[in-house]
Amino acid sequence: MVNVERIKKDIETMAEFTSTPGEGVTRLSFSDDDRKAREYIKEEMNKAGLKVYEDAAGTVFGRREGSKKRGKKAIPIMIGSHFDSVPHGGAFDGTAGVVAALEIARVLNEEGIVTEHPVEFVAFIEEEGSRFGSGLYGSRAIKGDVSVEQLKAAVDDKGISMYEAMKSFGLDSAKIGEAKREQGSIAAFIELHIEQGPILEHEGIDIGIVDSIVGISEYEVEIIGSPDHAGTTPMDLRHDALVEAADLIIYVNELAKTAGEGTVGTVGKIRVEPGAANVVPGRVTFTVDIRSGEQETMDEIWNKIREGIEALKEKGFDANYSNRLYVLPVKLDEDIKKFIEDGTQKLGYSYKRMASGAGHDAMVMASIAPTAMVFVPSKNGKSHCPEEWTDYEDLAKGIEVVFETLLSVDKK
Amino acid sequence: MVNVERIKKDIETMAEFTSTPGEGVTRLSFSDDDRKAREYIKEEMNKAGLKVYEDAAGTVFGRREGSKKRGKKAIPIMIGSHFDSVPHGGAFDGTAGVVAALEIARVLNEEGIVTEHPVEFVAFIEEEGSRFGSGLYGSRAIKGDVSVEQLKAAVDDKGISMYEAMKSFGLDSAKIGEAKREQGSIAAFIELHIEQGPILEHEGIDIGIVDSIVGISEYEVEIIGSPDHAGTTPMDLRHDALVEAADLIIYVNELAKTAGEGTVGTVGKIRVEPGAANVVPGRVTFTVDIRSGEQETMDEIWNKIREGIEALKEKGFDANYSNRLYVLPVKLDEDIKKFIEDGTQKLGYSYKRMASGAGHDAMVMASIAPTAMVFVPSKNGKSHCPEEWTDYEDLAKGIEVVFETLLSVDKK
Repeated sequence: MVNVERIKKDIETMAEFTSTPGEGVTRLSFSDDDRKAREYIKEEMNKAGLKVYEDAAGTVFGRREGSKKRGKKAIPIMIGSHFDSVPHGGAFDGTAGVVAALEIARVLNEEGIVTEHPVEFVAFIEEEGSRFGSGLYGSRAIKGDVSVEQLKAAVDDKGISMYEAMKSFGLDSAKIGEAKREQGSIAAFIELHIEQGPILEHEGIDIGIVDSIVGISEYEVEIIGSPDHAGTTPMDLRHDALVEAADLIIYVNELAKTAGEGTVGTVGKIRVEPGAANVVPGRVTFTVDIRSGEQETMDEIWNKIREGIEALKEKGFDANYSNRLYVLPVKLDEDIKKFIEDGTQKLGYSYKRMASGAGHDAMVMASIAPTAMVFVPSKNGKSHCPEEWTDYEDLAKGIEVVFETLLSVDKK
Repeated sequence: MVNVERIKKDIETMAEFTSTPGEGVTRLSFSDDDRKAREYIKEEMNKAGLKVYEDAAGTVFGRREGSKKRGKKAIPIMIGSHFDSVPHGGAFDGTAGVVAALEIARVLNEEGIVTEHPVEFVAFIEEEGSRFGSGLYGSRAIKGDVSVEQLKAAVDDKGISMYEAMKSFGLDSAKIGEAKREQGSIAAFIELHIEQGPILEHEGIDIGIVDSIVGISEYEVEIIGSPDHAGTTPMDLRHDALVEAADLIIYVNELAKTAGEGTVGTVGKIRVEPGAANVVPGRVTFTVDIRSGEQETMDEIWNKIREGIEALKEKGFDANYSNRLYVLPVKLDEDIKKFIEDGTQKLGYSYKRMASGAGHDAMVMASIAPTAMVFVPSKNGKSHCPEEWTDYEDLAKGIEVVFETLLSVDKK
């Protein structure tokens, strides 16, 4: 059985590998803390009898062989998450999924289970992009999406390229291409992750089954009115860019609310010029961030906002917009979702299907293998901060569900 | 008759006394440009046979004696405006009223008119506060509202105090108190000024009769919600401070529109924290600027906004506000307004009663003498910029109206 004390020890030990002790976990890829965390992971994998290796990106694998050596059953099922962190982050983001992998390996041994598929337990590097920007490097290297040129171009804030950092760390960064796995060479990828949002806790639900990882469309909008004197310009002769922006901010909020289930819309950044208490706002720029599990919903919301922006031109404003980011939603594997559902029911835990509002390695892995994600509750929905927390009992439930799912996928 | 060529020459000559030639008028008090402008004004006053003097604040006066030497008619009627400017301002703000004074002195001579009252033509210093902050120094010195301590405390951006600057300029700043005029020692003050707003031009009206100078109440509002992840926090679990601020921004606008005639409400400054595209706004601060000719209207609007802010606390937000500025509206003299109206009708010009949305020396003078203001149109409503413009024909109409008003007030 999944052992709460063991996973507590794993989480607590991993949390010690931080460059900001007492101020949250800061574990950047290819740092001393990465080294210490990596050594701990490898040691635990070795204890569990796994065959430990690192790929060209530095991602850590522990392989457990299966009973079938030929055919479809000879290709591995992969389980894990990432072990890097954001600066001053928490002890659970990524690490929870790595700990799940370690614990499942132990439980398989304890229960004497020999799977038909081999199982590879994985701890990805640089998912957050905290050191070299953009992130998801471990999974993207497996997809074959990281080139030597990219490693040379990605630099940290000290000007050290990812290429050099990997080399100094003892990796052969010139061979990054060797990390690639072919489409069809992985039977399934299952990632356990903390929710990083408040839904499960708020609804008192044990397990989130991730239906899709949301797509993101991000725009910058500019409204140009007239920067007139706030005292001498009567209300009916104004072109107040902020009043119009306010209308659109409310519209974004309403459209996302109406779209429902998992769709969100946010204006998080706004700038007003000239920005004085006694001058009518002449120019306002703001961001619009729309996320949804359905591309159609994402696009519909933006189209309505765009119409609202266009309509301003008829009211004497100048208005522009530009797209800053467009990421398609990723649907996760329906068969594995069903296995997760069955496993959860068997264990007597409550669950809900939900969208993931944040990106994960699973998003990349889904393009080369049937992929699924299990969420466990985040206290107060907090993540990327020292207060990030998941009760060990809740994490244990999630690990049990992944364990059951692994057995179902294996038998499929 | 008022001579358009003469006033054109006055305006154009005065516009040359700037430290930013080609980039608008920048004429700070007690500068070389002040000296040149002052010399020109004095010269024109001398030519018009006025008795020229400066008060302790450095404000320039040209006095024309009247026929009555005793009783109520022995106290002077005062006509004028200020002759300093904002940085990179226009040629008309303030100067138009000084030129009106010069031209009226000339016309009185040409038409051989001897008024019963003495008339004092005035060019105030430092109305804008562009050099030493806060402004209205010339009229405030007459009211007795400027102390030696204040002159020492008011410093320009080179660290020179107003006290020192006046001394270097040749004024005895220690005697600022001597500029004071007693209540009842001025029969009337009439100021011509450019509108600095778009109303007269927009409505095709020649003359604005200022009913009141608006009061100003300015507040800073703070809304504190929760800075959650824009991807993982569903719409119904957010406390988005910007969405609530947007509601209030629209409310300010609607309340001012509904209040009507001269009332304005502006949110000109807003700051969102943390201010990232992918984070729900956790804290928003913004200004609310309300101006009205009626104190009651000003207060009613703020009370409704305040209720809106208070209501946020019931929705789980923290919300605060503080008053930054509270200036009461100033009603101008009803009798003089009637004379202006009569004069305008006699001359066949169109007019409207209106509020002044900006502060003026007349606002201060109204506390010690019956005071009135005449507005002339501003092209595109622009002011405090090089494009500031009033057609000379329009300015001439305003000067004629002030001339007629002077004669009516004199005979009263």
